[in-house]
Amino acid sequence: MSPKKRLARFTESMKDSFDGALITPGSNLFYLTGIEPGNVLERLFLAVIYPRKAPSLIVPKLYEEEVHQAKIDFSEVYIWEDTDDPYVHLTEILEDLEATQKNLLIEDSMSSDVLMNIREHIDEYIWSSLNSQTSELRKIKSKEEKKLMKRAAEIADETYREILKEDLRGMSEKEVAALIEFILKKNGAEETAFEIIVASGPNSANPHHIPTDRKIQEKDMVIMDFGARYEGYCSDITRTVAIGDVPEVGEKVYKIVKEAQAQARKIAKNGVEARKIDKEAREIIKKNGYGENFIHRVGHGIGIDPHEEPYLTEDNEGKIKKGMTFTIEPGIYLKDRLGVRIEDDMWMDDEKSISLTEADRDLKCV
Amino acid sequence: MSPKKRLARFTESMKDSFDGALITPGSNLFYLTGIEPGNVLERLFLAVIYPRKAPSLIVPKLYEEEVHQAKIDFSEVYIWEDTDDPYVHLTEILEDLEATQKNLLIEDSMSSDVLMNIREHIDEYIWSSLNSQTSELRKIKSKEEKKLMKRAAEIADETYREILKEDLRGMSEKEVAALIEFILKKNGAEETAFEIIVASGPNSANPHHIPTDRKIQEKDMVIMDFGARYEGYCSDITRTVAIGDVPEVGEKVYKIVKEAQAQARKIAKNGVEARKIDKEAREIIKKNGYGENFIHRVGHGIGIDPHEEPYLTEDNEGKIKKGMTFTIEPGIYLKDRLGVRIEDDMWMDDEKSISLTEADRDLKCV
Repeated sequence: MSPKKRLARFTESMKDSFDGALITPGSNLFYLTGIEPGNVLERLFLAVIYPRKAPSLIVPKLYEEEVHQAKIDFSEVYIWEDTDDPYVHLTEILEDLEATQKNLLIEDSMSSDVLMNIREHIDEYIWSSLNSQTSELRKIKSKEEKKLMKRAAEIADETYREILKEDLRGMSEKEVAALIEFILKKNGAEETAFEIIVASGPNSANPHHIPTDRKIQEKDMVIMDFGARYEGYCSDITRTVAIGDVPEVGEKVYKIVKEAQAQARKIAKNGVEARKIDKEAREIIKKNGYGENFIHRVGHGIGIDPHEEPYLTEDNEGKIKKGMTFTIEPGIYLKDRLGVRIEDDMWMDDEKSISLTEADRDLKCV
Repeated sequence: MSPKKRLARFTESMKDSFDGALITPGSNLFYLTGIEPGNVLERLFLAVIYPRKAPSLIVPKLYEEEVHQAKIDFSEVYIWEDTDDPYVHLTEILEDLEATQKNLLIEDSMSSDVLMNIREHIDEYIWSSLNSQTSELRKIKSKEEKKLMKRAAEIADETYREILKEDLRGMSEKEVAALIEFILKKNGAEETAFEIIVASGPNSANPHHIPTDRKIQEKDMVIMDFGARYEGYCSDITRTVAIGDVPEVGEKVYKIVKEAQAQARKIAKNGVEARKIDKEAREIIKKNGYGENFIHRVGHGIGIDPHEEPYLTEDNEGKIKKGMTFTIEPGIYLKDRLGVRIEDDMWMDDEKSISLTEADRDLKCV
């Protein structure tokens, strides 16, 4: 589905309830317009989407070139220089809005300084989450989107295979993360999909550990959690390896996580409730005595954003339907000792879900 | 200066005008508390700073470990799990505020979904930019901060020297950017300070070009703009090299930019107005007939953020004082042909400014 079609669907879906949408750069802007200007830092780059005419675009002079990425038409492109105040123009736009609902959609990731700057002009409006409106459209992926996600997954798979060939002993977590990033990019990733996690030894007991200078040692379990961004779409894979000998508890825990993950993937069929997938993995881990050590949800949706709807939490009753893409990633974390997590990206087909990432899930001793 | 002292100064500066400050992760949280949890994505991680008691902290269970980074004391640390709603607790905090000013400082980079989620509880408040309050403190760097910035600058210098040894012919801009990132990290950077720019041939005429698959060719001018983050502090350097033979106009333009940059660095003395530095560089480029082709400000402050105050724009009458750190980076951009930019990080000493980045500024043909 082209951005033109997506935009048409979006405006159709919002026109009865909202007077417009204010969108700064990010996944929604990319989804609806094709524009991805990267990090514009403190400069205002904003699209205003109207229910019944082509959008306006406010662009800093420095990012003029990025307008060519657009795959839709604009009714106006306003380019401002460092000596201009772009909020003056935005105010004019907002004053000209034919507001019947007094309700504006606001990009969720918009930085608050922008919202504070325009608050005085739109204070009489209700502000609504743009994501809550776009996520319904975005969570069902088209065939073209699935293709891009499969490619992003392949890049992650291939990167894991290559990293297995390296001798990680004596390398720091930071160095391994830098190496993973380099290999991801060499293999075709535009960028990493999120900050890479390399967590070794006791650090692996922290699910969101940030890589440190700790050197990887014999008998460490090492969690590597990384993903590629390819033509705007993310992959997200986790594998846990052992360095040399596996500690006994590590082997035991690995087996449980592997079983829980396989079982959760298996029951992830078209129409299943998201919470059922979480429950399936959680029950297996609980049954084996590690219920307290599985301290996060079993997965999350993935697409242009590394985390998006649907969230696979204990209480999400929403159903997983054809075209949805999501991770399955149970883990067990033993404080001050070790952690194990196995994560794959899934795509829901007509009947059952298919693994986009396919790298070997057996415990590797490297 | 320790975060404890910084926090004391901050609360002293805000206590008469504001009832509190709401701070999500980023440079202000790091500056005031020492905590840098990385990208917490959609999970609420928030500090509430009060004028007259120790701050509160709201932390997702997954990021519990990051609380140990704190270099200050909290009156309360509230840890929430995926099944909790952290906004319920935040609401209680906001209801308990002894608000005398009805004025709250809001972290400028806070994502708007947070602000929208709490809007109903703070709608009767004035919202003020936290940056406008912290930037006065942050723009004067202590000796310890200067040391970290010097180290970040050295990492960038060394990375440039190493990249000069590579044969860039046939490599894509993306590959060169990945290689620069790898070398930065090998040399000790925690991460890149911002998205690396590698712009070759005609692409170098776009100051904020995003690296593409374009392969670097003979006679290209190549702009490389990158920086290291070291213990939270940024460097930011730009050098422009020629591949093999330099096109005649490239050599001409390089000479002008080099002169403008050197002259701007020279007049950057303690007490000079920011706009004077911009003007100095601009006049030289104008005099040589390329005034229209210098399409951005001459520089920006740098510290924990890659871009921060003071901004060196045509109209900033603020004075550059001892302890300020900023870039000087004039450029000339010839559309569809080539671009040249030279950028260094400066530190204002008692009398004159000192270059933190010192990599050779002569035109290199590689």
